Amino acid sequence: MSYQLIELSYEQDLAIVTMNNVKRRNALSLAHMQELTSAFREVGESQASGVLLAANGAVFCSGHDLSEMVDQDVSFMSCLLETCTTLMNTIQEIPQPVLACVQGVATAAGCQLVATCDLAVAATTASFATPGVKIGWFCTTPMVALSRNIGHKRALEMLFTGDPITAQTAADWGLINRAVAVEQLRNEALRLLRAASNNSVNARSIGKQAFYTQIDLPQPQAYEYAQDVMASASQIPDASEGMHAFLEKRQPHFDQRTK
Amino acid sequence: MSYQLIELSYEQDLAIVTMNNVKRRNALSLAHMQELTSAFREVGESQASGVLLAANGAVFCSGHDLSEMVDQDVSFMSCLLETCTTLMNTIQEIPQPVLACVQGVATAAGCQLVATCDLAVAATTASFATPGVKIGWFCTTPMVALSRNIGHKRALEMLFTGDPITAQTAADWGLINRAVAVEQLRNEALRLLRAASNNSVNARSIGKQAFYTQIDLPQPQAYEYAQDVMASASQIPDASEGMHAFLEKRQPHFDQRTK
Amino acid sequence: MSYQLIELSYEQDLAIVTMNNVKRRNALSLAHMQELTSAFREVGESQASGVLLAANGAVFCSGHDLSEMVDQDVSFMSCLLETCTTLMNTIQEIPQPVLACVQGVATAAGCQLVATCDLAVAATTASFATPGVKIGWFCTTPMVALSRNIGHKRALEMLFTGDPITAQTAADWGLINRAVAVEQLRNEALRLLRAASNNSVNARSIGKQAFYTQIDLPQPQAYEYAQDVMASASQIPDASEGMHAFLEKRQPHFDQRTK
Repeated sequence: MSYQLIELSYEQDLAIVTMNNVKRRNALSLAHMQELTSAFREVGESQASGVLLAANGAVFCSGHDLSEMVDQDVSFMSCLLETCTTLMNTIQEIPQPVLACVQGVATAAGCQLVATCDLAVAATTASFATPGVKIGWFCTTPMVALSRNIGHKRALEMLFTGDPITAQTAADWGLINRAVAVEQLRNEALRLLRAASNNSVNARSIGKQAFYTQIDLPQPQAYEYAQDVMASASQIPDASEGMHAFLEKRQPHFDQRTK
Repeated sequence: MSYQLIELSYEQDLAIVTMNNVKRRNALSLAHMQELTSAFREVGESQASGVLLAANGAVFCSGHDLSEMVDQDVSFMSCLLETCTTLMNTIQEIPQPVLACVQGVATAAGCQLVATCDLAVAATTASFATPGVKIGWFCTTPMVALSRNIGHKRALEMLFTGDPITAQTAADWGLINRAVAVEQLRNEALRLLRAASNNSVNARSIGKQAFYTQIDLPQPQAYEYAQDVMASASQIPDASEGMHAFLEKRQPHFDQRTK
Repeated sequence: MSYQLIELSYEQDLAIVTMNNVKRRNALSLAHMQELTSAFREVGESQASGVLLAANGAVFCSGHDLSEMVDQDVSFMSCLLETCTTLMNTIQEIPQPVLACVQGVATAAGCQLVATCDLAVAATTASFATPGVKIGWFCTTPMVALSRNIGHKRALEMLFTGDPITAQTAADWGLINRAVAVEQLRNEALRLLRAASNNSVNARSIGKQAFYTQIDLPQPQAYEYAQDVMASASQIPDASEGMHAFLEKRQPHFDQRTK
């Protein structure tokens, strides 16, 4: 598949999805969201063991494209937001860890993208905001992801004021994993993604799906579910190999990803 | 409506609710809770764009009034706690941001008040505790709000020991938005409340209600709900004006609050 | 009851459960988990007012015992994980506060033990990891406890990389209450446990059960439940004594634990 607004490349065993609509500040137009969803699905089917979500230009992602939305009716808006939710769900559904590498401002649905990725590293010069209220709307769907990453009062401060927080604040609040100097951003993002992508890709694939399922369940049901998943997962070849290798004090040799 | 234990005033477009039963350390007697609920409802119907909850005296709020509760039966206690929950729900139900301006000690249901408000700023000399266990009871209803603001172990430390935490610790844990020197408390509280109350009051009203609804839903249902709310909200006049103004690079002119 | 892998002792009114299978790094074999569950149940029925969970040796707890699990079928694994969940549930079900005193490495189900305890204090030299992915498996059931203590991105970083975090990071993230110098560990753990165990044991018993019940409920149902619990709890002798003592400005005299 070919993409117009984004780039998909591979570096060793990692997939790199780069938003590349610099002129439009990587705004999430319908077309842009559809390309991203397609790219994540393509990567999800690939042998890549991890995914970096990066962006070109000064802005990571400015959220939805207002020029496309102005004067549209509720049906269009519903369709647009459904497309956006599909993108967010896809990021959490694919088997690989997805890490947002945030080099600049991430606002509204752009901030939601960061909140949705499994992991995130940002340059200390980056910032995060949910400014919907400033244009007479409200970052209601971004709030779903944001409020599952940071506390109530911090989320409401961002949502009610629309004002940006720094990358360091985002790290302190748990919205991102860490903030680093911009010159180190790419290296640190790749280093963390590699650490999160090596070892058994099959085990991690099962684990990632289980994370997002159990987090929404009351604890007793979460344990019941997690026990079933973990008992089954003990029977895959990687688990057998991993336990034997550990007991024999040698490095394990894990399979490539199986479907 | 006239109030005995509290004061309700307006400063420009903000409502100020001040607990003023200094002798009783602003204890939440039945009468005090009913006045607060009435005041928040009155403000909720007003054109105010934000609400400050402040207190006179050295104590912000000492929780329920033990002198009223001692030797009472379970029916009275149920009625009292129902009245308390109604107050807490009202704070989250009214359309405006409510910010607690905490100048002193906030304990038990007083700590619950702070946890319940959308936003909170405290003086560094303020402190927070849930000391019910020290009087042979337990801060069970305050725990509902507290444990939705801070982590399990931090909540259990407060609940099991009954010991106070400082305002700075409360800020580090996300129970309040920030701690400032007592001389700057009022100004900083008003500054944050203004930042959280300007822009579109109609958009924020929809957003506040959506926040507390979606936070209790599993993520898939939260997205389904949030998409509906956000698509509908795109059709209000403020959203149309806001998008046009943004694209035309001018300041938007938002409506007063519509019902 | 006599124990082979652990020790159960009492210091004044506190119970001390000490994992003592140093050679096996306190691995949670079936037998070890069954002993722990029995000990917590025994303590739960005792007059002890608090429980310290400690460990001998350099390792706090290394998680499940791989030598017992290698080449086992799914039925064995299900049984093992069911036994593990029963242990975790027992810690939260007994009426006393349980504090993990973590002197060394806590990994996999050992990290889950720490996440499950009501409170935790660790030496600054301790560390925490969920390294299942490194052996081709995944810390799926530990994740249930871990992800209810720390944020999404921090949990996923631990689960995907399998790499350890320091005790100070664990404290910053809320996985433990605090990190202290190893020479002060035992004293600080006992000090916090005593602070969390004095006052009314009957009130705290009701409160602990209510904490874990309400945390899983949507807020409206949590309030309905908490009101009922708190109204009923106002009628126990300790509450009457506590309120009278407070109003009479004297120390309360609470009952021993009643069943």
